[in-house]
Amino acid sequence: MPSSRSAEAITFDNIQAARQRLAGFAVKTPLLENKTLNELAGKRVLVKAECLQRTGSFKFRGGWSALSALPEAVRERGILAYSSGNHAQAIALSAQLHGTTATIIMPNDAPQLKLRNTEAYGAKVVLYDRPAGEQREELGNQLAQSQGLTLIKPYDNPDVMAGQGTTGLEIAEQAAALGIDHAEVLVCCGGGGLTSGIALALEQSAPNMRVRPVEPELSDDVKRSLISGQRECNEGVPTSICDAIVTPSPGELTFPIIKRLCGQGLSVSDNQALHAMKLAMLELKLIAEPGGAVALAAAMFRQQEIESDAVICVISGGNADPAMLAKALSAD
Amino acid sequence: MPSSRSAEAITFDNIQAARQRLAGFAVKTPLLENKTLNELAGKRVLVKAECLQRTGSFKFRGGWSALSALPEAVRERGILAYSSGNHAQAIALSAQLHGTTATIIMPNDAPQLKLRNTEAYGAKVVLYDRPAGEQREELGNQLAQSQGLTLIKPYDNPDVMAGQGTTGLEIAEQAAALGIDHAEVLVCCGGGGLTSGIALALEQSAPNMRVRPVEPELSDDVKRSLISGQRECNEGVPTSICDAIVTPSPGELTFPIIKRLCGQGLSVSDNQALHAMKLAMLELKLIAEPGGAVALAAAMFRQQEIESDAVICVISGGNADPAMLAKALSAD
Repeated sequence: MPSSRSAEAITFDNIQAARQRLAGFAVKTPLLENKTLNELAGKRVLVKAECLQRTGSFKFRGGWSALSALPEAVRERGILAYSSGNHAQAIALSAQLHGTTATIIMPNDAPQLKLRNTEAYGAKVVLYDRPAGEQREELGNQLAQSQGLTLIKPYDNPDVMAGQGTTGLEIAEQAAALGIDHAEVLVCCGGGGLTSGIALALEQSAPNMRVRPVEPELSDDVKRSLISGQRECNEGVPTSICDAIVTPSPGELTFPIIKRLCGQGLSVSDNQALHAMKLAMLELKLIAEPGGAVALAAAMFRQQEIESDAVICVISGGNADPAMLAKALSAD
Repeated sequence: MPSSRSAEAITFDNIQAARQRLAGFAVKTPLLENKTLNELAGKRVLVKAECLQRTGSFKFRGGWSALSALPEAVRERGILAYSSGNHAQAIALSAQLHGTTATIIMPNDAPQLKLRNTEAYGAKVVLYDRPAGEQREELGNQLAQSQGLTLIKPYDNPDVMAGQGTTGLEIAEQAAALGIDHAEVLVCCGGGGLTSGIALALEQSAPNMRVRPVEPELSDDVKRSLISGQRECNEGVPTSICDAIVTPSPGELTFPIIKRLCGQGLSVSDNQALHAMKLAMLELKLIAEPGGAVALAAAMFRQQEIESDAVICVISGGNADPAMLAKALSAD
């Protein structure tokens, strides 16, 4: 049975409405181009620098979108989220700016920078044992019920997806201003909130662009799901330095949109992600975290799998510890 | 005798004209704000990210402005410049995009990244012995005369100054959009092209802002010149990691404007510049080179010398070698 657009979690109008709510709060991040990257890739490479977004990742768009859409009385009772760190910071800051409280369930192996920043934004952090396979979803549901908190899931939430989709509206406008309307748009993909949001935004605002999800090789559930046509899971707990996008499977709400609109998935090695981080630092003057660098890595190191003359890569976040940045700088 | 505005090298109109020539070629760089930096400084800190400019520094504005203002017949004969690296890359790329040739005189101790990139932009690089005190100005004049090239000085050139001033027009507009019209504007200062250009742009577009030049402690010629009222020189060859802004003295054309419009100079240690580089990486997700980080360093570490409730810092460039970035990451 072909997937039906009317059954999807959000529409283009939801993304436009989210953009209204984000105006004056989210950064309109630049779309950058660099001569060296163009030469390395043999085509125009445009980079959407979402690492410059508030809290250091695109997640602020979705977090703000979701909190600003809640009725005030609900929001006041407090917000709950689970996240490896970027959604955590986004919810923490959005809650703080809205004058409410945030409780965040985070894995005990999250980068120190993300844990520290989440607390610095005033959130209460509850740790769970990810390496041991503890499930954050269960813990989240328990806390939400017992404390009357509203759970904002990191990707399977329509308002979050609509917020992430605002990135796509900006890409369409900024690329058009640079004379580009045909392109493959490479998006770092975990649960698929950003990927599905951008795909839906571009369907209407730049119909000649095609989104391609990019994942770490050892956590390529979206790529495999696009091949099989149904949501596939990663086996066990995938090991990758790309903590931000290591997720068990594509989202229930995000996958139907990804399936209908996206091209084939791409995957890169951790080492390629590190090399892309180094290129981002030396050429673009941007800090990318490993999971935020996989789209750029695919543009640079998976060229044979990309057909279009122009490629747009989202650097989705830049929250890396100094040790990880030093590791990337010494990549060769 | 009070300095006379009519005797100055450029006017506000020249900056507006430069902006017209730069439209579609230079990046309108973002003005970023970060919660952690605000808390560390105890005030709003806005960062103008000129490290995201083409060629990795603000110098592209001045280079493009100067080349685009030349008569075509003159431009075609070839361009000559001397530079520690950022003006070099700016002139090299501007020449390449205009379809003409560039010859660049660079010090033999310039960062490898800057030398390599200048050649990658198609320029012919001629090295001189800076540590031994060889004078680039003499060499430049000789080459210009013998080969019929047009010398574009790095700061003492009206069209270069006007180009750098376009940074100030953007700052005024972007700060106003964030609700800020009173601020001290800290500018990394070498010969004073950027400082004088921004000061002149703000005089008309944001008259409640005051520019403060920032230098390395061991190369504080502008600070001392502002005290004495006349152009002072650095003694010998100053030693600083801030290669981009180590210059012998304020420019002949830039200093009258700096003297009339700028507040007291600030200076920071190399170690403070390294710490500011680390903050830029971890908090702003931006790469700053040492000389490009001194304004942010002053905002963070010289707070007792800053009066205003809001401060705007220009990160003027990001062309640092991996070893320098690693050094900054390990600063404590």
